[in-house]
Amino acid sequence: MDFYSGHIQTLIEELGKLPGIGARSAQRLAFHIINMPEQGVERLAQAMVDAKKNVRYCKRCWTLTDDELCPICSSSSRDESTIMVVENSRDLAAYEKTGEYRGLYHVLHGAISPALGIGPGDIRLKELMGRLAAEPVKEVIVATNSSLEGETTAMYISKLVKPTGIKVSRIASGVPVGGDLEYIDEVTLLRALEGRTEL
Amino acid sequence: MDFYSGHIQTLIEELGKLPGIGARSAQRLAFHIINMPEQGVERLAQAMVDAKKNVRYCKRCWTLTDDELCPICSSSSRDESTIMVVENSRDLAAYEKTGEYRGLYHVLHGAISPALGIGPGDIRLKELMGRLAAEPVKEVIVATNSSLEGETTAMYISKLVKPTGIKVSRIASGVPVGGDLEYIDEVTLLRALEGRTEL
Repeated sequence: MDFYSGHIQTLIEELGKLPGIGARSAQRLAFHIINMPEQGVERLAQAMVDAKKNVRYCKRCWTLTDDELCPICSSSSRDESTIMVVENSRDLAAYEKTGEYRGLYHVLHGAISPALGIGPGDIRLKELMGRLAAEPVKEVIVATNSSLEGETTAMYISKLVKPTGIKVSRIASGVPVGGDLEYIDEVTLLRALEGRTEL
Repeated sequence: MDFYSGHIQTLIEELGKLPGIGARSAQRLAFHIINMPEQGVERLAQAMVDAKKNVRYCKRCWTLTDDELCPICSSSSRDESTIMVVENSRDLAAYEKTGEYRGLYHVLHGAISPALGIGPGDIRLKELMGRLAAEPVKEVIVATNSSLEGETTAMYISKLVKPTGIKVSRIASGVPVGGDLEYIDEVTLLRALEGRTEL
């Protein structure tokens, strides 16, 4: 494609590496960026670099955050007796948007998937068990996706947690089977939370 | 949304300003960027800033390029007697991908739209007329979109060019009415080029 000069071509290629951005979207975004005010482009570029450099894992719940503890873990108004286990920070955000859940979270950063070679040691399960030993937890709500991997992970967590005597529950299957938690509307998410059953 | 810390929130907001990137896509992209290798993020950010700072308009055809003249205008193997007029650089790229057109281009950067308040003076028409006076042009092929704005612009160009004695043609309506040139397959684009009729 020698009809684009170097800088445009480089930008299109870099944008095209992002997930969900195909060749045409990359081209469209590149021309949009070139037509943006210079300040806006610098703000966007800086936001990327800043986020990459400064964002780290909350040392308690492992969500992505700027500080040692995320805003939820450092809040005094959250119920420390409940931990909701989610696959990633986007799923945490999905439940936070309901505005109803007042407990804490634990972000696994993945789910067990024998097909992809992801075992229990590859997600933050050891850290979850550490919290159950150290914190005043009464219930673990497993809110992994209702995919095969999510269900496998839920079963695994249930087996790990039950011997500790702490209650383990699973969000109800109001969540459509095979669905991805982050794309589900808040009403369905709430119904699933209310209808949770003990594992 | 106080569940995202500052840097993540800022990044999501900046990404969400891009066209076609909704709230959920912005969130998904933000987390992807945070999980990318630091070098990759810096390369992407730098590509944006570099493109914005260094890309300018070709002083002949007004496409976006790195140098005074774009690769097409500075090539010695293009046919200088034909100018294809397009609305933007993406449409130029669409015709270049056919690999068949060997003439030059002229990028208007828009189309006449009374509804949007875009008049003939707001697109690069004066520059086109300047080229017709200075360059050995025998034919102007109008390849604006087949939308209302594109057709209006084509009619306007036809009226401007005809008195000069230079041939004006319009790409054939193989292009579906209301369609956007950049999304059309190469075969259709070629058929439209072959079937062009004199205006």
